[in-house]
Amino acid sequence: MASVFTKIIQREVPGYIVAENDFFIAFLDAFPLTQGHTLVVPKKEVDKIWDLDSKTYAGLMEFAYEVAQTLEKTISCRRVGMAVIGLEVPHVHVHLVPMNQMNDINFSQEKKKFSDEKMKEIQTKIKSQFSKA
Amino acid sequence: MASVFTKIIQREVPGYIVAENDFFIAFLDAFPLTQGHTLVVPKKEVDKIWDLDSKTYAGLMEFAYEVAQTLEKTISCRRVGMAVIGLEVPHVHVHLVPMNQMNDINFSQEKKKFSDEKMKEIQTKIKSQFSKA
Repeated sequence: MASVFTKIIQREVPGYIVAENDFFIAFLDAFPLTQGHTLVVPKKEVDKIWDLDSKTYAGLMEFAYEVAQTLEKTISCRRVGMAVIGLEVPHVHVHLVPMNQMNDINFSQEKKKFSDEKMKEIQTKIKSQFSKA
Repeated sequence: MASVFTKIIQREVPGYIVAENDFFIAFLDAFPLTQGHTLVVPKKEVDKIWDLDSKTYAGLMEFAYEVAQTLEKTISCRRVGMAVIGLEVPHVHVHLVPMNQMNDINFSQEKKKFSDEKMKEIQTKIKSQFSKA
């Protein structure tokens, strides 16, 4: 069965998409740790990051670098943290988390929930900054 | 002042080094979250990962990929998680954390401490596996 991320990629499930090319996509995490928490995902559905072929892995990391630099310009924070864990959705995803303190990237804490309006506002800011790069 | 990681690179401070080339180095975290928790570090001392030039960043990620695959072969775990946070030591470091559950990569939890003998045993296992790759 297609992962929820594949459904977002195929527009079967709505997602707050902020950046996309032929091979990779970035969208806001629906269960964010902080405002602007973004997932960077290869369109190819593979479970574990270390099982990606080296070319796809390198492309994913390069795309994450571009998205992270956009986040740093868009979201007020001390720095953008990165994490790949993957115990929940079996489709590789790089978390980019705007952080001000260590606990902002603690995945064991309760997730935040922002209104649809707020999520769209964050999406628009990131998306328009990314398209300028 | 040189970071503690630069001191490990220059052999001024002892470290459990598991892999190294001209530009990057990997050693066991002295304050590990789990057994085999490894840091992958560029020899060039830069504070924030997103400030690395794109070539150094790509090289770092490629080196992390090789080390992570070595860890998966060496350390018993469900998967190897990756995180870049950087609020503590101002010298880019990629955490590779052998994980069995979500909380294994919670940086807010108390760190573990293994004996020097145990750390050397883990170092030897990873190092010998890496050199086979």
